[in-house]
Amino acid sequence: MPLYRKDLLGIADLSPEEINLILDTAETFRDVNARAIKKVPTLRGKTVINLFFEASTRTRTSFEIAAKRLSADAVNISGSNSSVVKGETLIDTVRNLQAMSPDAIVVRHSSSGAPHQISKIVDAAVINAGDGAHEHPTQALLDALTIRQKKGRIAGLKMAIIGDILHSRVARSNAHLMSKLGAHVFWAGPRTLMPSGFEKLMAPSEGSLTIAENITEALIGADVVMMLRVQLERQAGGYFPSLREYSIHYGLNRKRLELAKSDVIVLHPGPINRGIEIDSDVADGPYSLILDQVSNGVAVRMAVLYLLAGGQ
Amino acid sequence: MPLYRKDLLGIADLSPEEINLILDTAETFRDVNARAIKKVPTLRGKTVINLFFEASTRTRTSFEIAAKRLSADAVNISGSNSSVVKGETLIDTVRNLQAMSPDAIVVRHSSSGAPHQISKIVDAAVINAGDGAHEHPTQALLDALTIRQKKGRIAGLKMAIIGDILHSRVARSNAHLMSKLGAHVFWAGPRTLMPSGFEKLMAPSEGSLTIAENITEALIGADVVMMLRVQLERQAGGYFPSLREYSIHYGLNRKRLELAKSDVIVLHPGPINRGIEIDSDVADGPYSLILDQVSNGVAVRMAVLYLLAGGQ
Amino acid sequence: MPLYRKDLLGIADLSPEEINLILDTAETFRDVNARAIKKVPTLRGKTVINLFFEASTRTRTSFEIAAKRLSADAVNISGSNSSVVKGETLIDTVRNLQAMSPDAIVVRHSSSGAPHQISKIVDAAVINAGDGAHEHPTQALLDALTIRQKKGRIAGLKMAIIGDILHSRVARSNAHLMSKLGAHVFWAGPRTLMPSGFEKLMAPSEGSLTIAENITEALIGADVVMMLRVQLERQAGGYFPSLREYSIHYGLNRKRLELAKSDVIVLHPGPINRGIEIDSDVADGPYSLILDQVSNGVAVRMAVLYLLAGGQ
Repeated sequence: MPLYRKDLLGIADLSPEEINLILDTAETFRDVNARAIKKVPTLRGKTVINLFFEASTRTRTSFEIAAKRLSADAVNISGSNSSVVKGETLIDTVRNLQAMSPDAIVVRHSSSGAPHQISKIVDAAVINAGDGAHEHPTQALLDALTIRQKKGRIAGLKMAIIGDILHSRVARSNAHLMSKLGAHVFWAGPRTLMPSGFEKLMAPSEGSLTIAENITEALIGADVVMMLRVQLERQAGGYFPSLREYSIHYGLNRKRLELAKSDVIVLHPGPINRGIEIDSDVADGPYSLILDQVSNGVAVRMAVLYLLAGGQ
Repeated sequence: MPLYRKDLLGIADLSPEEINLILDTAETFRDVNARAIKKVPTLRGKTVINLFFEASTRTRTSFEIAAKRLSADAVNISGSNSSVVKGETLIDTVRNLQAMSPDAIVVRHSSSGAPHQISKIVDAAVINAGDGAHEHPTQALLDALTIRQKKGRIAGLKMAIIGDILHSRVARSNAHLMSKLGAHVFWAGPRTLMPSGFEKLMAPSEGSLTIAENITEALIGADVVMMLRVQLERQAGGYFPSLREYSIHYGLNRKRLELAKSDVIVLHPGPINRGIEIDSDVADGPYSLILDQVSNGVAVRMAVLYLLAGGQ
Repeated sequence: MPLYRKDLLGIADLSPEEINLILDTAETFRDVNARAIKKVPTLRGKTVINLFFEASTRTRTSFEIAAKRLSADAVNISGSNSSVVKGETLIDTVRNLQAMSPDAIVVRHSSSGAPHQISKIVDAAVINAGDGAHEHPTQALLDALTIRQKKGRIAGLKMAIIGDILHSRVARSNAHLMSKLGAHVFWAGPRTLMPSGFEKLMAPSEGSLTIAENITEALIGADVVMMLRVQLERQAGGYFPSLREYSIHYGLNRKRLELAKSDVIVLHPGPINRGIEIDSDVADGPYSLILDQVSNGVAVRMAVLYLLAGGQ
């Protein structure tokens, strides 16, 4: 079954069937990545442009490795040295890239909706690699792949996402994805870092999202706990008094993790701040699947590139 | 027919036959870029180094995509992180690169003549990707390919090039190329931004170049209008009073374009400054071939790499 | 014969047999680099990550070309744009990279021992591309390949290494390698730039290292003279009074070179400071093999990548 869409802009647009198709495809690529010869000829003769207006070594490297293992030609463009600095508009930059006949453009941008704008003017498949505080769909997909791999299912699970929800595209993409597949998502964090009204943005076909009163409500009985990275500049912004306070009230330590189910799994989109939002004995402990997420990230990106850029 | 030269340093050196060979070859690669599988094995096992001492995402990306679609190994080196910062001379940097046995070195440098110096000390094919205000041969070739594609010929056309001629390698390379192929080139722009004496640098075998008295003389009856980018720092340099004045006197708008032939085509080397040297309704209008130029750029660079690095 | 080790962290760990295996393998790759088609399929489907926390265009380019000519997928990560800037620890950065299943990680880092730390936590082959003032094993290997190519042997040669020994990983790696293969190494330089006690760090199985009283003692009868780069910031550090003084007392000129054997060869790890540690007529003269070193560098890195990442 092919994916009948040109772009991957967000999880909000996807049906459960499309999500499962991507996850199933990613599983076959996970096998490829475990082989001695980690390469398939699927995207030979295709051009993938990684257009990163925000720096992100991890995500860019993951997409670059994914493209190369599919035999695509991968080209990296970063915002700092792009012609954006010469005053060209985003739209003109992208129109010019389109004129070079790429098959896929992977975009990271600090403005919500930038990939959507781009998708309207290019023939290439546009893959959102994170836009502002809006969506980061491949991150939610790799999270789902990791959960499914360990739990065997998504439906019926309780997932707690804890931290700076307000600025987190990961929290939003996960809320869409997990609830579409029948999980129950709880968001918790400092009140100053909680958005208002996001539940109303979710489609009726999407499942449930609860804004928890406190971190305990979110953690009790959780099957999955995802900790979000504290952006250190938020402290200066007055969102919370100090990193120490943050860690005491919202950091995940072994004691707090006991509130969750005994077979809980712990996720984090990385990079982690050890001792702030997550203690090292949790991050490195038996419940942590943080590095599985990274491995699954390459497989998910191979699947998305294959499904969007591989066909006729 | 092969191209009997080691390097592409400028259009001034080329015969009309060589120019036509490159353009004809580029047409076959334009077809390759329109295929689902945009890749040929021609330069497999060849190494192409993109050595950019000036930042240029667009040109670097174009050469990188060209090299990869020819199956070459492409390596990017940018001036800011090269060993130049350690005080090594340009010549030593290049000698070291030569010792790694590249087949082609693509050079952009702020000094006129830098690629010529380099070409004398390396066995690799040297391709000038822009040197100071001197030449930018692949740009003129992609312009010619675009004109030929639309007009069916170059000979006999009137081409107006308007703007900052003084600092423009594009204007110089185009003057050589178009007049060699029998077009009549008119240069126009603010007096402070016009060079003196360039006509005398053109070879007797080259055709005609006219320094127009004013923009109207250049535009009247033109078949091709090429607008040059205003370098915003020129205003601070006192070359013209303000961007608004520049736009009023030298910018291309629909009204001014009516001076040209009714089937005029509009070109720009990019990136464009909308509302300064070109109005959006012209840049995005039916006469504009600005994005065709970019597409043809990849094809021209594939042709040049193939002709210079592909043979025995 | 395979190389029975996971990593190449330093020359100190290697047996003479292992060194000779790498050099013999490099010779076959030197032949590949002399061909029209400089490519072998050996590492197809393998991923090589170049992780450079210190800028080094030359070494990074050499490794990148080596990986690509072996048909590996090469991915570059530089310290300045890596997630290191987000406060992630080195260990977490590397664990994340490991999760993407690379086959080799090439590391340059300003801290001595960083590659050793990394090697303990990753399955990938770790190749030290220079760590602080500790080791730079592929540099010493390419030096040895260059000497062996010219002299036919290493054993019994007298090698003078002159300059800033204190901060030089090249001097250390060469001392280990040359003495393991039976050469006699003399170190000479300003007293302020000589380390104390390194001889004691050499294994009993390693040959002889002499700290010369002066540059003349080192040069007399030398078969090989290696000049080290003066780090220009050392002058500010008070290690020597001026570049002019340095050049007079420690620079290699034709007159001083007459102290050495009549068939002496001159090496330098580059980039060279002309007129400071080496005069141009020596650097460009008949005894100089500085550019052969660079050529051999690609071959040595192909050999190391092949031996460490090429197996089952």
